Amino acid sequence: MALHPDRLLPTEPATRAIARRLYDAVAGLPILSPHGHTDPRWYATDEAFPDPATLFVKPDHYVFRMLHSQGVRLEDLGIPTRDGTRVETDGRRIWRIFARHWHLFRGTPTRLWFEHALEQMFGIEERLGEANADRIHDTIAEALAKPEFRPRALYDRFDIAAIATTDAALDDLAWHAEIRASGWHGRVIPTYRPDAVVDPARTDFRDNVERLLALCQAPATWEGYLDAHRVRRAHFRAHGATATDHGHPTARTAALDTASARALFERVLRPPVSAADAELFRAQMLTEMARMSLEDGLVMQIHPGSWRNHNPGLLDRFGPDMGADIPTPTDYVQALKPLLDIVGNDPHLTLILFTLDETAYGRELAPLAGHYPCLRLGPPWWFFDSPEGIRRFRELTTETAGFYNTVGFNDDTRAYLSIPARHDMARRADCAFLARLVADHRLDEDEAHEVAHALTHGLVKDAYRL
Amino acid sequence: MALHPDRLLPTEPATRAIARRLYDAVAGLPILSPHGHTDPRWYATDEAFPDPATLFVKPDHYVFRMLHSQGVRLEDLGIPTRDGTRVETDGRRIWRIFARHWHLFRGTPTRLWFEHALEQMFGIEERLGEANADRIHDTIAEALAKPEFRPRALYDRFDIAAIATTDAALDDLAWHAEIRASGWHGRVIPTYRPDAVVDPARTDFRDNVERLLALCQAPATWEGYLDAHRVRRAHFRAHGATATDHGHPTARTAALDTASARALFERVLRPPVSAADAELFRAQMLTEMARMSLEDGLVMQIHPGSWRNHNPGLLDRFGPDMGADIPTPTDYVQALKPLLDIVGNDPHLTLILFTLDETAYGRELAPLAGHYPCLRLGPPWWFFDSPEGIRRFRELTTETAGFYNTVGFNDDTRAYLSIPARHDMARRADCAFLARLVADHRLDEDEAHEVAHALTHGLVKDAYRL
Amino acid sequence: MALHPDRLLPTEPATRAIARRLYDAVAGLPILSPHGHTDPRWYATDEAFPDPATLFVKPDHYVFRMLHSQGVRLEDLGIPTRDGTRVETDGRRIWRIFARHWHLFRGTPTRLWFEHALEQMFGIEERLGEANADRIHDTIAEALAKPEFRPRALYDRFDIAAIATTDAALDDLAWHAEIRASGWHGRVIPTYRPDAVVDPARTDFRDNVERLLALCQAPATWEGYLDAHRVRRAHFRAHGATATDHGHPTARTAALDTASARALFERVLRPPVSAADAELFRAQMLTEMARMSLEDGLVMQIHPGSWRNHNPGLLDRFGPDMGADIPTPTDYVQALKPLLDIVGNDPHLTLILFTLDETAYGRELAPLAGHYPCLRLGPPWWFFDSPEGIRRFRELTTETAGFYNTVGFNDDTRAYLSIPARHDMARRADCAFLARLVADHRLDEDEAHEVAHALTHGLVKDAYRL
Repeated sequence: MALHPDRLLPTEPATRAIARRLYDAVAGLPILSPHGHTDPRWYATDEAFPDPATLFVKPDHYVFRMLHSQGVRLEDLGIPTRDGTRVETDGRRIWRIFARHWHLFRGTPTRLWFEHALEQMFGIEERLGEANADRIHDTIAEALAKPEFRPRALYDRFDIAAIATTDAALDDLAWHAEIRASGWHGRVIPTYRPDAVVDPARTDFRDNVERLLALCQAPATWEGYLDAHRVRRAHFRAHGATATDHGHPTARTAALDTASARALFERVLRPPVSAADAELFRAQMLTEMARMSLEDGLVMQIHPGSWRNHNPGLLDRFGPDMGADIPTPTDYVQALKPLLDIVGNDPHLTLILFTLDETAYGRELAPLAGHYPCLRLGPPWWFFDSPEGIRRFRELTTETAGFYNTVGFNDDTRAYLSIPARHDMARRADCAFLARLVADHRLDEDEAHEVAHALTHGLVKDAYRL
Repeated sequence: MALHPDRLLPTEPATRAIARRLYDAVAGLPILSPHGHTDPRWYATDEAFPDPATLFVKPDHYVFRMLHSQGVRLEDLGIPTRDGTRVETDGRRIWRIFARHWHLFRGTPTRLWFEHALEQMFGIEERLGEANADRIHDTIAEALAKPEFRPRALYDRFDIAAIATTDAALDDLAWHAEIRASGWHGRVIPTYRPDAVVDPARTDFRDNVERLLALCQAPATWEGYLDAHRVRRAHFRAHGATATDHGHPTARTAALDTASARALFERVLRPPVSAADAELFRAQMLTEMARMSLEDGLVMQIHPGSWRNHNPGLLDRFGPDMGADIPTPTDYVQALKPLLDIVGNDPHLTLILFTLDETAYGRELAPLAGHYPCLRLGPPWWFFDSPEGIRRFRELTTETAGFYNTVGFNDDTRAYLSIPARHDMARRADCAFLARLVADHRLDEDEAHEVAHALTHGLVKDAYRL
Repeated sequence: MALHPDRLLPTEPATRAIARRLYDAVAGLPILSPHGHTDPRWYATDEAFPDPATLFVKPDHYVFRMLHSQGVRLEDLGIPTRDGTRVETDGRRIWRIFARHWHLFRGTPTRLWFEHALEQMFGIEERLGEANADRIHDTIAEALAKPEFRPRALYDRFDIAAIATTDAALDDLAWHAEIRASGWHGRVIPTYRPDAVVDPARTDFRDNVERLLALCQAPATWEGYLDAHRVRRAHFRAHGATATDHGHPTARTAALDTASARALFERVLRPPVSAADAELFRAQMLTEMARMSLEDGLVMQIHPGSWRNHNPGLLDRFGPDMGADIPTPTDYVQALKPLLDIVGNDPHLTLILFTLDETAYGRELAPLAGHYPCLRLGPPWWFFDSPEGIRRFRELTTETAGFYNTVGFNDDTRAYLSIPARHDMARRADCAFLARLVADHRLDEDEAHEVAHALTHGLVKDAYRL
């Protein structure tokens, strides 16, 4: 197998040569990872990663959703049950199941990320299968025990210049504090993700709001609640945060007057909360967050359109985030209007939009981002963070929004070892797209080099204010 | 014209060479046709096909819809009217109209299917046009009179290993019984299509249900009605059926309790039936069919999203299926949830989803099929059963659902002579897609060979339990 | 930079060679521009165009929306304010801002149109930037003063055979009359665009209807109002019009009986008009316009799905058409049914459909146009009038609707100097698509030549009855 130096580049030789020149110029740039889900504890404690199955299989919903779709039981993959029913604990047996089903990942980005990690991290150039499952397992297991596979050593080996984690509003950021206090040179910064204190549809919403208010010594009023957000945002900024993130079911925003907002706040704290009120409160809070971003400079990210935990059987047995989150059609044009009517023309706000509905790229997102000064387009997200997904994103947004209303790449991952692979894939996919524009004379090659560099570095740095 | 051996393969020479190797390895595999609309009578009686116009023009809605769109009257194509008004009966004159408009099909799959049949079946390598219309007509007409153009001879010539027809729940399957009784080696199996006894929006619904109940000696209760379905399914299985098929306006499913289902059953038998009740009954019946599939092992297929008979003028004059069926936006994520909540995690169920809304491929269908053990993705359907349609299907589903949650190809046709052409096109299109993955090093060539074989044979056989 | 002769053609050499042959055969054909927004006054008075900024920046919403999206103030681009607040008046300073931001247009069609005009019109082969901004400004400014840069000279230089403008129903068409009276050989024809007298949601609707009725000496009744439209349509036809155009928020049509239409007409003339009534009136008027087209032979165009003036801040300060028009999801299947039920099967009507929702191409528009004799598909519109947009249009519509249910290209522009560039781009993009069909043997090259010619000339001429 062995990774081919021209993988993911265009197949037409002259175009591939252009792509290769573009890629070679950005392949070695440091990684900026402004949005992701690695655990700050890793960088704080710098402990060794556990066995291969715990590293590659159990925490990766891309992996176990595919195995589940083909009838593999999550219990057999060692996914812990809520009620404590026994599940597989032998990492080697889990790894063998994974290896036996490896062909399922043909044509998927998971395949490419994994093989990139295998070769680059562990020097393994064989294709995983039943025959070599044990041998590959042991090679990885041995390596993970070595100091150079600790989180901080990998941070350097991956050439990360900055990496953001995603943290609940109520998080004390103790690991971030510890990282800073340790004097280590790595730049690990938090991101303010207030969903748990913003979404009245959550069963723990009221408790979360009470904790928020207590934490900030704020009164249980609409104004007190908003001030508590301000306090927490300041806390995050003090720990290096440059951004907030909002994972809402829809992109809906609202622009209530103060009296209506106060009344709504009181209603959502007294169950039962109607679905309409929950949606309206989340909508209003996006607008409030945008206003606060204008106050404190935090960049705002909206990730809408996922139907979380679509599979109640799995939710009951294993809990949330079990690969059962399904995209839904997502409106932006009507949804964002209340917010945009208020802050849309202010170039001091940066609001980065993501989508799981690719039909919005050309129809809504590119026209919006190609007009409103506050808007930028986030990179392809989740299912679309892939060679075909990145190609479609550029093909569908560039002609209307250009490159400079986009913000480079997010790896968005908790799979630490996949980070170099994901950034490499994005760089290759962007260079492939640019090479096609050069090859059919829509762009000059020197410009393509500038754009490739901007997509890898400048636009990320600027958009996320790193 | 003469069919080019590399038609539909990638144009970049190195990629084409890979595609050619992949294609050569599957081109000669037998045809498995698990979903289609050929007439079982053909195989039972083995009579000669009629004249060219009756074979190629009159029954093919792909052909006459395009001619109609350019102002050709259906009467002039010999399409019979409901009221018996005279229409063209001279097959040669119909054929000439077809030939004169042949340029309309440039860039369409109909063009490719037809020319494949012309050359492979009749040795005709000329492009159809006004000048050679008569000559080509006569060549075909002469051939059709020969024994080697009878249905059973063609079955062997096409190298069909199994072919499914689609049959109404009330069908006695007499032709299927006759085929079996004849001792002929061909495998022609029925498919249980209960739409006429499931859809209360049909004017003949009540009559159909009464016939169903009488046929199965079942009482006119909800339970009796369900039992009657069980009886008919068993009848179909006894004749070789392995699957059911459901052509609903939407993919909506429901999970009513028994009391509500009983009440609904009574309501839909007493006209007028509201549109909401009709939709709810169809929805509930999809869930019931899934439950029965778990009992009896029949594979379930859902074909939603076609607005049938959109053109009332044509419906009044010529009846249904006149090329006026138009796709509509189709939701799966919300629609299927009631059914999936009940049977979604059971790997013993196979539920194959089709769509006419390509926006669902990446946003809904691939994420659903890449998670739920019971779900598989049917091949591109109807308008999208084409080179571009197959390419988009693979590009939009593979990265999330992989290849192994798909089920190979369906020709879905009543145009018997087009079957080899359609399967050949699908094999070429899939090999073209795979070759691109190999050429840019996303897949190794030996794996691509395995996948190409699986898409042509193994996945079809397994998914449809053939 | 210098325009490459093979720009926008496929990069694979053999396919490019085919595309080049196809393109060379149509590159020199005269321009038919059946839908656009140039000012008839230009052709009537034949005055010199003003300075570069007034020509290229201020009137072009593609240009200033992109600059605005990156924080450039419209005041600094010389866009006049509604309240008369001072804005930049120095064209050279505006031009410098444009030049400094030129990189924003990388990958956009604006870039290609502009550079085509620069080189072909002004002999400038340098890339615009800060360093050469003044020099390029002066070169253009000098040229514009010359007689060969006057509108009529350019009409000949562009080799325009006919060009349509778009004109309000109340327009007296005085400039068109003056053009005709002048004896000049150019063919400049109006298009009947009655939105202002058809859309009750406009604040000036009632005044406009009163003016319409007065102009036609028609009574203030539903019948009088319809007759007034007939009078105006006749007036337009007398000035050479062959088409009408309808820019509605949706494609909805209606088929009210006369009593209901009369009552609705009375309601929409008495504010406040409900949104539902406004929509219903527009819907009914599309059907009325189709009926009148059957009477008088005017071709009908529907341009639905743009959310006009989405940005209230910009609307208040600068007025409409400031680049804040955003596409929305657009239904055709249900929306057009009332109209199609009445006139859909009449081949004497030509109804050309446009969209800003590309999801409708394959799902709705191609199936509709591939069936109904009255329907044709307009070319990619607005944001999609681009290399990728044209490619997607052909890929998504051809297999179902063929080429002959499309109508060639519309430049749809008020940017006179971009007209040759836009038509050249469309010819290149269509030839690129055709070359791919030839290269993978879906089409013979002689047929591709016929199609390329038809898309450039015959289909435009026939569809628009020029």
